[in-house]
Amino acid sequence: MENFEFYSPTCFVFGKETENRAGELVKRFGGTKVLIHYGGGSVVRSGLLDRVKTSLDKENIPYVELGGVKPNPRSGLVYEGIDLCKKEGVDFILAVGGGSTIDSSKAIAAGVLYDGDFWDFYSGKPITEALPVGTILTIAAAGSEGSGDSVITKEEGMLKRGASGNAIRPKFSILNPALTQTLPAYQIAAGITDIMAHLYERYLTNTEEVEVTDRLIEALLLTMIHEGPRVIADPDNYEARANIMWAGTMAHTNSCGVGRSQDWLSHMIEHELSALYDCAHGAGLAVTMPAVHTYEMPHNVMRFAQVAVRVWGCQMDFAHPEVTAKAGIEAFRNYLISIGMPKNFEELGAKEEDIPKLVDVLLHGNGGNGTISGFMTLGEEDCTKIYQLMV
Amino acid sequence: MENFEFYSPTCFVFGKETENRAGELVKRFGGTKVLIHYGGGSVVRSGLLDRVKTSLDKENIPYVELGGVKPNPRSGLVYEGIDLCKKEGVDFILAVGGGSTIDSSKAIAAGVLYDGDFWDFYSGKPITEALPVGTILTIAAAGSEGSGDSVITKEEGMLKRGASGNAIRPKFSILNPALTQTLPAYQIAAGITDIMAHLYERYLTNTEEVEVTDRLIEALLLTMIHEGPRVIADPDNYEARANIMWAGTMAHTNSCGVGRSQDWLSHMIEHELSALYDCAHGAGLAVTMPAVHTYEMPHNVMRFAQVAVRVWGCQMDFAHPEVTAKAGIEAFRNYLISIGMPKNFEELGAKEEDIPKLVDVLLHGNGGNGTISGFMTLGEEDCTKIYQLMV
Repeated sequence: MENFEFYSPTCFVFGKETENRAGELVKRFGGTKVLIHYGGGSVVRSGLLDRVKTSLDKENIPYVELGGVKPNPRSGLVYEGIDLCKKEGVDFILAVGGGSTIDSSKAIAAGVLYDGDFWDFYSGKPITEALPVGTILTIAAAGSEGSGDSVITKEEGMLKRGASGNAIRPKFSILNPALTQTLPAYQIAAGITDIMAHLYERYLTNTEEVEVTDRLIEALLLTMIHEGPRVIADPDNYEARANIMWAGTMAHTNSCGVGRSQDWLSHMIEHELSALYDCAHGAGLAVTMPAVHTYEMPHNVMRFAQVAVRVWGCQMDFAHPEVTAKAGIEAFRNYLISIGMPKNFEELGAKEEDIPKLVDVLLHGNGGNGTISGFMTLGEEDCTKIYQLMV
Repeated sequence: MENFEFYSPTCFVFGKETENRAGELVKRFGGTKVLIHYGGGSVVRSGLLDRVKTSLDKENIPYVELGGVKPNPRSGLVYEGIDLCKKEGVDFILAVGGGSTIDSSKAIAAGVLYDGDFWDFYSGKPITEALPVGTILTIAAAGSEGSGDSVITKEEGMLKRGASGNAIRPKFSILNPALTQTLPAYQIAAGITDIMAHLYERYLTNTEEVEVTDRLIEALLLTMIHEGPRVIADPDNYEARANIMWAGTMAHTNSCGVGRSQDWLSHMIEHELSALYDCAHGAGLAVTMPAVHTYEMPHNVMRFAQVAVRVWGCQMDFAHPEVTAKAGIEAFRNYLISIGMPKNFEELGAKEEDIPKLVDVLLHGNGGNGTISGFMTLGEEDCTKIYQLMV
């Protein structure tokens, strides 16, 4: 096991109707005047925003509000939020929504206490000070609810950049599985796939002697295998949603990924697919992962055999471990298909003739040096073959 | 799953030579003058205390020191520590040792900022303010390194009482598995047993639909099964120690126990054994758990069958699940014997004729009402039978 630091100071408040505790939690973490930050109309229509306001009223905490956060949140709204907070004397940011809303809230929180342009933080300056942020999550395991990261897109040039710092880790995050119930089945399946991807990216390690984190990752994958089909079959199944939501949060805090090298090649390779075809990230991962794993398998047959046996219930072929390893990859692919995810380029809406372009942007876009690294180091030929496996 | 709150804000710094980062971490968490608090001479003899001091010197952080913490830490030393901190202007407490040293440090941290008698906190007053505490752990998973709890014994009347509050949660805890290497094999085995007990107490739940936490507990039990014998066979095996240490910490933060009722009957029943015979807590648990589980098994056969199959690798007897359930309990008992733990009253040094006394103190001591509750509710006859199963 490698040396590591594990720091996850966010207070997770989990369960039914927990959004009604927003006021109490803002107060506990020192807020006296709140900005409620959110995205589109669904939090208004569902009545969630009203419940949050009622909860703040109950604690006599005044608030202002700012909606309009879009996927890939923009700098323009961040500037607007910063101005509003300064004008109104806001000292606590409450994000109601998914990852984009939380990321936008973190940017505002850092910007309010900074005299310069908040974009400095997204150009490399570390965030050392920020207003406290709390979140009420409307999508399972956005990730941002427990992290010190934020990604914002600057309108000029559409520059997408990240900033980090312990100061922007949420003080609390309210996780009510019932709030995720309005999503369509395809989005739910894409979310499940994304959580499993976060687990596989951690599982595929070159670090030896990591039994405890191997076992924890396997535990969360087994949970997804059990609960995924249940929530797809019955979107009102609160218990299945609750198990998935906590598994997703546990995957994100990285308690199961500490002390080991990680992969993340599937995320890199998928990124070009969702960028070019505007498909759901999870759907892209469903097509990408079996291809990447098939290509990576010879790099460490026993690791893939282990996950096949321990997670997918395959019988170990002791004479031919690669048979077991392949069976595990097939089982994962079939699982993803069973919850409604696409299985190849065609179903995803991707085109074989785009492969050279995909590989080029992947390896040379954004200042890339011609290779990407994780569980393995991949060059042009490798990446081309992997995309071809998806056709 | 039940609603829950999960809050574990401690920064865990894990790995080889991490004690040399003490100074850097004290600085990060705002300390400018430190009390180094420790127990006996082993931290002096091993050179650990010197390394910690060197690390503080490197950051130009002045310190005073106070040793002499004993198991079941006493109020006298706490008063002494509070006076010393006030006199010297200490603003950070650094605990170097195990659970007792950390508990004593937390008491001092709360007492320094309080005008009254610190014992008020151990008489029911909540701790809302305390000096920051950091820890350097010398024993795997003492528990106190990540908790907001502290237990102190008042010399007058030997009253043992607990206090709690988020304010006394350690800001950081340094976990270097190599620092635990000096313990004798019997103590290591007792520690392993204690960690497994913390997992079983969480596993035995009456809450339904808790797949994610079931799986996480099973993951940590599987880790202990794999790593326990390795560290007993080779005390210098750093990797086995590292896996055990992180598993123990994960068990304690309760991320695998949230949202479900828990048991803790084995802990209650064992407590009377270590109190009367002064045996190691873990050794007492090794004798207690198989007896308690045997008695509890009919309460939920399928739960015991599940752990037998998933953790102990037993074959499921679908026609007779109780056969599988029993096989799992036997496998656990044999595991504990294999790492050197006692298997019955005789090996523990307990006496059959004391059973009525044990039951009486268990059920009626400390204001007890004649029953104890967890996975089941037990009365006099139940507890008598359980102790008899240990003979």
